[in-house]
Amino acid sequence: MSTEKPPLPAPRLGEPYLLTPGPLTTAYEVKQAMLRDWGSWDDDFRAMTRELRSRLLALVGTGADANDCVPIQGSGSYCVEAMLGSFVPKDGKVLVLANGAYGLRAAQTMEYLGRAFTLINKGDYLPPRGAEVAQALADDPAITHVLAIHCETSSGILNPVEEIAEATRAAGRKLLIDSMSAFGAVELDAGKLGYTAMVSSANKCIEGVPGFGFVIARKDEIEAARGNSHSLSLDVHAQWATMEKTGQWRFTPPTHVVAAFIEALKAHEAEGGVEGRGARYTENRDVMVAGMRGLGFETLLADRWLSPIIVTFFCPADPKFEFARFYELMKAQGFIIYPGKLTVVDSFRVGCIGQMDAHVMRKVVEAARAALKDMGVESAAPPAEALEERKKLAA
Amino acid sequence: MSTEKPPLPAPRLGEPYLLTPGPLTTAYEVKQAMLRDWGSWDDDFRAMTRELRSRLLALVGTGADANDCVPIQGSGSYCVEAMLGSFVPKDGKVLVLANGAYGLRAAQTMEYLGRAFTLINKGDYLPPRGAEVAQALADDPAITHVLAIHCETSSGILNPVEEIAEATRAAGRKLLIDSMSAFGAVELDAGKLGYTAMVSSANKCIEGVPGFGFVIARKDEIEAARGNSHSLSLDVHAQWATMEKTGQWRFTPPTHVVAAFIEALKAHEAEGGVEGRGARYTENRDVMVAGMRGLGFETLLADRWLSPIIVTFFCPADPKFEFARFYELMKAQGFIIYPGKLTVVDSFRVGCIGQMDAHVMRKVVEAARAALKDMGVESAAPPAEALEERKKLAA
Ligand SMILES: Cc1ncc(COP(=O)(O)O)c(C=O)c1O
Ligand SMILES: Cc1ncc(COP(=O)(O)O)c(C=O)c1O
Repeated sequence: MSTEKPPLPAPRLGEPYLLTPGPLTTAYEVKQAMLRDWGSWDDDFRAMTRELRSRLLALVGTGADANDCVPIQGSGSYCVEAMLGSFVPKDGKVLVLANGAYGLRAAQTMEYLGRAFTLINKGDYLPPRGAEVAQALADDPAITHVLAIHCETSSGILNPVEEIAEATRAAGRKLLIDSMSAFGAVELDAGKLGYTAMVSSANKCIEGVPGFGFVIARKDEIEAARGNSHSLSLDVHAQWATMEKTGQWRFTPPTHVVAAFIEALKAHEAEGGVEGRGARYTENRDVMVAGMRGLGFETLLADRWLSPIIVTFFCPADPKFEFARFYELMKAQGFIIYPGKLTVVDSFRVGCIGQMDAHVMRKVVEAARAALKDMGVESAAPPAEALEERKKLAA
Repeated sequence: MSTEKPPLPAPRLGEPYLLTPGPLTTAYEVKQAMLRDWGSWDDDFRAMTRELRSRLLALVGTGADANDCVPIQGSGSYCVEAMLGSFVPKDGKVLVLANGAYGLRAAQTMEYLGRAFTLINKGDYLPPRGAEVAQALADDPAITHVLAIHCETSSGILNPVEEIAEATRAAGRKLLIDSMSAFGAVELDAGKLGYTAMVSSANKCIEGVPGFGFVIARKDEIEAARGNSHSLSLDVHAQWATMEKTGQWRFTPPTHVVAAFIEALKAHEAEGGVEGRGARYTENRDVMVAGMRGLGFETLLADRWLSPIIVTFFCPADPKFEFARFYELMKAQGFIIYPGKLTVVDSFRVGCIGQMDAHVMRKVVEAARAALKDMGVESAAPPAEALEERKKLAA
């Protein structure tokens, strides 16, 4: 007896699957929710805003009561900036834990803010560990906050947030988490981790369309954030205070994107919430990684660090392999993949999130097989330097 | 022989018309463009971004060559903040011309930025005139920039930007314009006005859905803006530099909203561009204002100051008139109107922008007549204070 679920429907207008970490392939029903117009001042839309906030809040597990959800117009990076500008006091100091592009962007944001920070930069993908966080906090009593990236999407590594949260709490400091690409598919329990605030956005694991993000933060911290922000638009406290008072967003909300997101939140719940969503993505990853390894591709990361969000593969050493060609061949077969972001060796990435399931992932592997054949690539094995590089992780 | 055009189609899903200044009623075809997903890194989407920028730039009339268009994720207020933070140097000083909520919000933004500004506050609606701008600039040589609101949407007044531009140029200062609610329907010629930068957003006179805005600025000013911004997310120079280099937005763009906007830009062109769009809105206003005056309502502004964007009416003096009730009665008939923003007397607003024409505006007037009847309001005439207030304009 087969336990296979029926396949998810393919994109109805025939566009390629987006094997990218957001924007991603969304359900047709989610997009259909955008076929009407709403007045942002009207009660109907206020009810939608309430629903959005309470549904999101319910996803943080224990500790939801002590928290509140504040949606913010703009992209995910805006939310990271809003979180840093609102929760780090002007005389605070942040320990930024970076192992890829998004950690470095958080550090760059701190530079714009002109507030103090110190950086642990682990390079392209090595995880920041609890022990080194503890050491850094012990060494520098001025540090008030730690900023961690949950899934560092530039390599796909799932960073050890539990260890980091534990070290931060033990040192009596506050934790800020960028869970952009993981929230909704990987547990991020507010009670257990005790974070001050976290951010994510509409077009990741909840499978909405892009146009806003959100902060989930402790209510006492939101109240204390009054007057901290460097920016009117990105002031979490001000946005929250207006929403609490009037039920409205301070400035024009992306009404259609919000409508789509509510549809996406309902589908998320119907799939079994964070657990159900995470299970599908994990299966997507397992099927895809096994298939790609079967073709001779190698992952950057050892299994323990692989997220169910996106996976980095080394480009084959074979000189006949050319990424731009591979991309076009994959696209012609209906799959948009993502370039890599490693600085040392060539790589590419395949996302596991969005309206896709194991059936689709198997087709992705078949498409990769056909693309290699088309290019005349005999072996997908990476160059020796790549495997050398990877040994660092074991060390 | 009738010169009447055939009516525009009604909202296909039966939702009420939005007589609000954005979000507004958009064409079904605009919303339909959101029914597929795009990869933000893919060539297809880069081509859309190119098209969006070049079509917008073409709307500034003469001087387009010296300018460039930089879309910014977020709402219109984000764009105002991005413009102020990027074009006003840290040691600059801004003369903010305020006659309503949006002028005051620009002043508040300057407070967040911590950069110098001085405010001419004309109250609820009186227009800032060229002569007083000239005087203020003569009095304070430290002023580097003037910030003007094109249509101050909180009253609906069309501010005299030509006078203001002339005074600013004569004094050798730079002009920044918030043309949020007017751009695309009221001429704003870059060559004639010689502004440094202007901003508007997707969900106003171009009739897109909300989710981003844009800055149109002189290229030399964009280049000179490097390093000015207080915010990573709202750094116009950085957004522009990335777009020029890669054709991509720096951070995840609202792909679906962009797709809708391109559809809206095509419809805008088909309607005859700024002139054609402005003509329809002007007719909307004329038909609606004449009808409302016929019912006994009075406008806040004299005809000379009325914009084709949105019109403020005084609430009737009759104690049986209650705005909340009027709102619900109008909504039940398919029309969402907008509360007023005057501080001195009660008012409400009716927008003229969006997918509506004279046929619809006549129905709006009929709905208002029915609503008055339902409430038992005998006369829509405003209280004496309102007319007193209005006399200020003539002075
Ligand atoms: C971990 C992480 N942080 C921040 C961002 C930035 O989000 P956005 O591109 O929406 O600004 C991303 C985007 O993928 C991300 O994955
Ligand atoms: C003149 C003007 N400026 C600024 C804004 C703010 O735009 P948003 O609500 O998109 O932030 C508006 C909105 O209507 C406006 O009319």
